[in-house]
Formats: sequence, C-alpha cells, structure tokens
Amino acid sequence: MCNSTNGHVGVDVPDAAAESRRPGPALIEDLISANHILFDQGVVDAFGHVSVRHDMQPDRFFLARNMAPGNVTASDIIEFTLDGDPVDANGRKVYLERFIHSEIYREFPDVQAIVHSHSHSIVPLSVVKNIPLRAIFHMAGFIGECAPVFEIRDVAGPGTDLLISDNRLGRALAQCFHASDIVLMRGHGSTVVGQSLRQVVYRAVYAEINARYQIEATKLGEVTYLTAAEAKSCVANVEAQSHRPWDLWKAQARERRT
Amino acid sequence: MCNSTNGHVGVDVPDAAAESRRPGPALIEDLISANHILFDQGVVDAFGHVSVRHDMQPDRFFLARNMAPGNVTASDIIEFTLDGDPVDANGRKVYLERFIHSEIYREFPDVQAIVHSHSHSIVPLSVVKNIPLRAIFHMAGFIGECAPVFEIRDVAGPGTDLLISDNRLGRALAQCFHASDIVLMRGHGSTVVGQSLRQVVYRAVYAEINARYQIEATKLGEVTYLTAAEAKSCVANVEAQSHRPWDLWKAQARERRT
Amino acid sequence: MCNSTNGHVGVDVPDAAAESRRPGPALIEDLISANHILFDQGVVDAFGHVSVRHDMQPDRFFLARNMAPGNVTASDIIEFTLDGDPVDANGRKVYLERFIHSEIYREFPDVQAIVHSHSHSIVPLSVVKNIPLRAIFHMAGFIGECAPVFEIRDVAGPGTDLLISDNRLGRALAQCFHASDIVLMRGHGSTVVGQSLRQVVYRAVYAEINARYQIEATKLGEVTYLTAAEAKSCVANVEAQSHRPWDLWKAQARERRT
Amino acid sequence: MCNSTNGHVGVDVPDAAAESRRPGPALIEDLISANHILFDQGVVDAFGHVSVRHDMQPDRFFLARNMAPGNVTASDIIEFTLDGDPVDANGRKVYLERFIHSEIYREFPDVQAIVHSHSHSIVPLSVVKNIPLRAIFHMAGFIGECAPVFEIRDVAGPGTDLLISDNRLGRALAQCFHASDIVLMRGHGSTVVGQSLRQVVYRAVYAEINARYQIEATKLGEVTYLTAAEAKSCVANVEAQSHRPWDLWKAQARERRT
Repeated sequence: MCNSTNGHVGVDVPDAAAESRRPGPALIEDLISANHILFDQGVVDAFGHVSVRHDMQPDRFFLARNMAPGNVTASDIIEFTLDGDPVDANGRKVYLERFIHSEIYREFPDVQAIVHSHSHSIVPLSVVKNIPLRAIFHMAGFIGECAPVFEIRDVAGPGTDLLISDNRLGRALAQCFHASDIVLMRGHGSTVVGQSLRQVVYRAVYAEINARYQIEATKLGEVTYLTAAEAKSCVANVEAQSHRPWDLWKAQARERRT
Repeated sequence: MCNSTNGHVGVDVPDAAAESRRPGPALIEDLISANHILFDQGVVDAFGHVSVRHDMQPDRFFLARNMAPGNVTASDIIEFTLDGDPVDANGRKVYLERFIHSEIYREFPDVQAIVHSHSHSIVPLSVVKNIPLRAIFHMAGFIGECAPVFEIRDVAGPGTDLLISDNRLGRALAQCFHASDIVLMRGHGSTVVGQSLRQVVYRAVYAEINARYQIEATKLGEVTYLTAAEAKSCVANVEAQSHRPWDLWKAQARERRT
Repeated sequence: MCNSTNGHVGVDVPDAAAESRRPGPALIEDLISANHILFDQGVVDAFGHVSVRHDMQPDRFFLARNMAPGNVTASDIIEFTLDGDPVDANGRKVYLERFIHSEIYREFPDVQAIVHSHSHSIVPLSVVKNIPLRAIFHMAGFIGECAPVFEIRDVAGPGTDLLISDNRLGRALAQCFHASDIVLMRGHGSTVVGQSLRQVVYRAVYAEINARYQIEATKLGEVTYLTAAEAKSCVANVEAQSHRPWDLWKAQARERRT
Repeated sequence: MCNSTNGHVGVDVPDAAAESRRPGPALIEDLISANHILFDQGVVDAFGHVSVRHDMQPDRFFLARNMAPGNVTASDIIEFTLDGDPVDANGRKVYLERFIHSEIYREFPDVQAIVHSHSHSIVPLSVVKNIPLRAIFHMAGFIGECAPVFEIRDVAGPGTDLLISDNRLGRALAQCFHASDIVLMRGHGSTVVGQSLRQVVYRAVYAEINARYQIEATKLGEVTYLTAAEAKSCVANVEAQSHRPWDLWKAQARERRT
C-alpha cells in the first residue's frame, strides 16, 4: 500500500494483486482524446491529468502514466484501484496526485470522469479570498453560485508542497465535492467531475473560460451572475450540446497528431 | 410548428411543407466562408452561428445544421422559413437558437445577414451594468454610442437557460434591434446584423476587438468615445473597406482547410 | 490632384505625370518583408500600412496598393509623389490614408520609413487622457518620456471618420513628429517613423509591447519609467541590435509563405 | 580584455588565449534545445539568452553567438571564460550582456545554467515598486517570498542603456543572487539560475506564468501567497518533475524544426 505520506516522493509503485476486466471498446480511446483535447485547449500543459472510471468494474479507473497529457497513447494508460494503486503499471511511473481521482471515485459512485488542472484563470481566483468562482454565462451553469476552495493548510498545515499526494489528502479534497462539481485548490488549480469524459472535458474548458470572463467583469463593476435556477437550466439544456465541442476538439486533436 | 418552449429540447424538427428557389451561386459559398472565418478569428468556438437571408426568396434564410461552425460544408446548410422551421432538414438536427435569426429577418426586411456569438470580451461586458459597449475606435462605428443589453429575465423570468429557443423569445430580442445593429445578451453573448455576410462578419470581428479595447481603456481612466457623428462617418467610410479583411480571411480559411 | 476631402471616398486615383528611377535592389524586397512581418507580429491585421522612401529619388516613396499587408507581393507596390499621388497605379486602388506617409516624408527629409497601425495595446492608450505612452523598458527608448496624441477633432471637428484622408490632415499629423518619433492617434492607432524599414518595423513591434507592459504596470501601482537619458542611451545601443529581430522575422515570414 | 564600458558597443571580441576540453556529449545538444524551448514558450523573442557551465571545466561556460535563440544550431555556440571573453569566437559576434552569465558563474560555483529574458509579465512587475514577484502557486516555489529587483541606477546612475554590458555591472547583478534564484531587473527583465538546463528552463517558463497569475490576482483582491515552508516543499517535490515539461518541450521543438 502506498497511502502514507512517505510514499509520495517515489512514483514507482508496486502493482496491486487483482484481476482486471476489459473496458468497453471506446473508453480508452476517449480517454486518450480527452488528454489531447485538454492540452490543445490550454487547460493542461505538461502538468494536469484526466481519468475515467472503468465502465465494467466500478472500483477501478484509468489514468495515464506520469507524463505530459498531450502525448498520451494507449500504451501509457494504467488501471488503478480505488486505493490509488496501479493494477498493471509494469514499471511505468504514476502521477503523484492519483489520489485526487481514487478518493473522488470512492466517495461519489455517480462520478465517471475527473479532470485536474492548473489553468490560467483558475489559479488567480484560487488565491483571492473575496471572489469565489461563480457561473457568469450560460456555458458554465455547472459552476453554480459558488465553487468551494480547498485550503490544504486546514488539513495538513502551512508547509506542504500543495500536492494531493496520499489517500488522506485525497479524502479531504473529495469531501468538497458534496457542495459542487468543481473545486478550486488554493495556490494550485482545480478539479472538476462529470458523468462522462465528454462532459468533464467540456466543463474543464468552460470553467477556465468562465473564470477569465469573471476576472474581466469583476474589474469593471458589479457583476450579474446566473441565478441558481438559471445555472440549473443551463446544465440541463446547454450541456446536452456537449457533443458539439467534443466532436470538433476530437477531430482537431487527431488532425494535429497525424 | 415548433414555436412552443417545449420544442427546444428536441432538435429534430419536421420540415415545413413548402417549395424552394435556388439561391444565387455565391450565397452558400459565402455562408460557408463566413462560418469558417468566424471560427478562425475566434468569434465563435464550437458554439455560435451565422445566417444569410435567401437572396431570391426574402421569407427564407440559410443556417448550418447543429454543428461547430469551423467545419461547415455545403451539405450542412439548411433552409429555414421565418417561423424558424427547416424546409429541407432531412433529418439533420437544427440549432436550438434559430429563432434569433428568423425573428430578426421577419422584423427587419433590410437585414441580410446575422451573427450570434459568445466572444471573449463581449460576455464580460454583457454582465456589468454600468458599462455599455460603445464605439471606441474608427473600425467599430457601427456600435454607436450605446449597444443595448437584452435581459432575458425581463421577458421570461429568473430561471431560464438563457437560450433564445422559441419564437416569442426571438421576437423579444428582435425588438432591441430598432435601437442598434448590435445587441448584447446578458450572461450569454451578442447578436449583430448587417446588409451582407461580408459586413456582418466584419462587424462581429471588430465588435469583439472594440470590446477588448474598451475593457482595457476603462480600467485605465476616463475614455474618449466616438461621437455619434464620428460613428456615422466611420460606418460610411471604413465599412466600405470591408472587402479587405473579407478577402484576407477567406483566403486564410481556404488555406487552412486544404 | 486628389488632396481635397472629396477625393477620399474614391480610391481610383489618376497617375501623376512623372518619370521614375529604379530603387536599389533590396528596397522593394525589404518593403514586402516589412508588410509580412508586421502582419505576422500582430501589428497590422487587414488594415495598417508601411512605406519606404525611394532611395534614389527622395521626393518619392513606395507603398502597397489598398490591400491586406500580409499578402503583399512585388506587383502590389506603387510609387507615390510627396503629394500622395500614385506615379504608376495603373488602375490599382490606393490606401485612403496615403497622406500620412506623403506629408511626413515631405516635412522630415531624414525619415526613411513609416508604419501606420491599430495595434491592440496602442488603441486603448490613445483614448485615455491621463496616461501618455511612455518608454517603460530598454527595448522602447524611442518612445521617450511622452508620445503625443493627435486629436483629429482639433483640426477637423467632431464628426470625421478619423481617417487621414487628405493632404491637410496629413500635414496636421506630420507636425506632431517634431516632438516624437511615434504619435498616437485618438480612437484610431499610431504612426511611427524611422531611418530604415528595419528600424521602423522594430519600433512598431516594440511600441505595441511597451504599451501592453505599460497598461499592465499602470494597473498595479506607481511606475518607474525610463529617464530621458536612459531612453536616449537605449536608442543608441539597443536599436543597434535591430538586425537580430529583423533577420528572425524575415526568415519566419518567408517560411510561412512557402 | 573587454571588461571596460567602452567595450560594449563593439561585439567583435578577440579570443582569449586558452585551451579547451570537450564538454559531455549531451551538453551542447541540451543548450540548443534550451534556446529553442525558451523561444517556443514565449520566454525569449529575438532577445534573451541561455547559458550552461562547462561540465568538464568549471571556469568556462557556453552561450550562443549574438542571434535570436529560436534559430541556434551547434555552430552558433561559443565557449567563454569567467571574464566573459570568448575562447573560440572565430569572428562570430557575441552578446553584449554575456557578463550576466560570467559573473554569476564566478560568484556561485553551484550554478550550472542561467536564463536572461524580458518575458511579458515580468517586465511590468519590474517597474512597479510596491509589488515584488512572489510565489503564488506550487509550480513556482523557487521564487520564494520575494524576488529582489536590480536597479541599475544604484550602480551606474540614471542615464544607462540598462544593459549589463561589462564585468562591473555583471558583478553588481550577481550579488543579488545571494538572496534569491531569480532577480528582476528594473525596466529590463529578469535573470534566473539553476542547477541544470532542464531546471533553469522550467524556472524561466514558470516564473513568467507565476508573474501573470500574480498580476491578475493582485488586481482582484488580497492574495494568499505560498509560505516560505510551502515554497521550499514545492521546490523539493514539484521541481523533481521538471523532466516532464522538458521532454514535452524538447519533442515539440524538434518537431517544429524538421
């Protein structure tokens, strides 16, 4: 087991002894696309990661090995247990922060996909106390009226590396998702959850755009945010269109890589 | 008929029973170019749309099927009536917000082309009450002294999805164009009208640029805007040059797609 | 002659009856490169222009026909007199604002090249009264302690199209260059002069960058600008390095166009 | 010797009479990659430079000839002594500011690589007195609680060209690195040091990103910065991951140049 804080500086983790089922045919392909799209859209750079729950075995999930998301291929995908242990790493190094994923999947059985990133407009909002991230336009209803900010100092004191590098920190972060589908992490970035890769990628992209718009608007004057009812309607009706950006981004990602 | 609010979650709409005339030879080609240009210039992403009135049958207009504008081809163009009903969808899905187009064409016989978008500097201005979009430089005289902001809450209450998804909402939005050729939509984006695709694409691009400049200037100090007379002179003389960006952008759009 | 205000809506101008000498072999090639570089670096879009004085005949200058600078080729270059009249237009349309160039060349025999543009950070500064463009870093010493702003209302009243579309307006603008090598034009853009294409392209690019930095810094607190002596030293020593960006940009421009 | 201020306008410097050892096989290749990466990531444009200490002869370092970093090849690399004199220039021109590198290497035997640049968010911070650059997120712990600003006026008076163009100025700048691994230079840019090219390139990129985030956050409200202990932990744990961006950027740099 590697859930102690000592484990997080090493990223060679022994495989868990367990059997695996094959995922549905499109799942890994979509996870690869999600990695590429998030890089192409500027949500992740060499850092950040996206995972998907195993569609045939809900106590497992898939995540790339420790590498830049924009270059992920099928051979880079590793299966993990909900303890954050790799099932089939075969010597491939794993992300220090896989516990973000494992503990949210454990806590929320309906979450199917997760993105963690440090995108450009999210980080500044994460360090300013008086301005919570709020839904400012119809594309980002999922943000709702107030995204919580996870302050790692409250859990682990004032001297950490800010990384969610063990199960305990993962569990603490996961608790914040009872209040929201997106959680900012002070001085670090954000994590967003969804019910499919398509949805969570949509949300990660538009969370960044909403943050950018909110920062601009805040500097100009008093802002009219979405009401709770508007936010809810937008999630129902606008997110139903998330196939549109997904199809576009997926086609672009393929074109750029051939 | 599909003008009830119930209709907007489904986007498979039965074709209207009606005959069609062929448009002029360049009209559809220009509409495709307009879609591509607006994507290339960052005015639309996977969302937003551009239409043109039928040049042989003024009670019809053309609009792409429900898809990302940057990839539109001739086979994606659908003809619509001024009720927002497709004439020849043949099973292709249509945009939820086609009523933006249909109702403006109905209300304003001189409008020949329309762009609806959520561009980056327009959305922040749409949610700040004290700063209306105003013409700040000679390229954007068409904005004039004050662009109105359409507040959907005034028409449909505080719990909508902000979409113009039926004829009634389209009519309410269309009324705002009696005051201006560009209308901001709170928490959503903007719609701009013109007398040709070339002109409306020009306006959509420079509305975004004007908004960006205005936001920057507003944060620095007191701003000198164009006078009404200057704005009018600029429309007359600068927009006469709109073939210059159109030719450039069209050539770029072609190059990127071959 | 076309120096009346009536002339500026038409851009088909009859050729002046005059002989021409051939320019040095690199002059036209460099002018084409300058057009491409300014587009590639985002200083001009479909609008804006760059000219160079004839190196064998100082009462003439070269400027592209009325078109987007990024696509200029040798066949698009037109020779002009210092009245702003084309010598060899042969039916090619000319820029409305060629009088910016003609009147500055007439007034300042040492000016060899001129750029007029509407770049992104210059326009906002042009409309805010309390913050003049000033040199903020060593790359932009040529801006000095205060760039003047040309207010066309002072010359032609409050209802113009802001364009420098005749000799009289060109002369008024040219007067501002007695105080500075760069002049902002309210609600319009800027014009910058230099002693070579290489230098003026360098200045147009770094004027925009300086403006961007200045806008950012101004929003943060009190700014330390270059002293007059620092600005002067920077012009002497840093601009002597302007071959470095020129060589880079020229190579990039060629690569993008082949 | 060329350490007088008179030397800095000429950049043809005679070679020092000295023998050279061959560097390790990857050192020059990595230095070329570092040049390309810094250009691709927008940290340098046609200006700025990166050096590495000779791995077999610690009183020597390598730096490109006077040129744009994005185009550097093996034949452009010159070896220098710690006096800033080229060993093998063979007529190739050298950077005016090589003394930044020579004097830091002389003062700090553990420094192995140095980047000097004028990146977009660093310059504005360098001219505003009340806001020091501080670590705002986990990727930039190396900035710590306060990056010093080098004011050349304190050393050389109010009329310089701001360049570090001789040994004396290099020594004055080098002193600032006793307090920090990154030093801002007023009205000029910054210099950052590291223990490898990989690390210093990482730091130059994330210093710019941190500055951008800090500028945004500062305009919004009170900012929570990293504590000294957090910054230290981040350096230890996050910088250990610097191979991830290096591998990505190196692959991208190669792809763009073939």
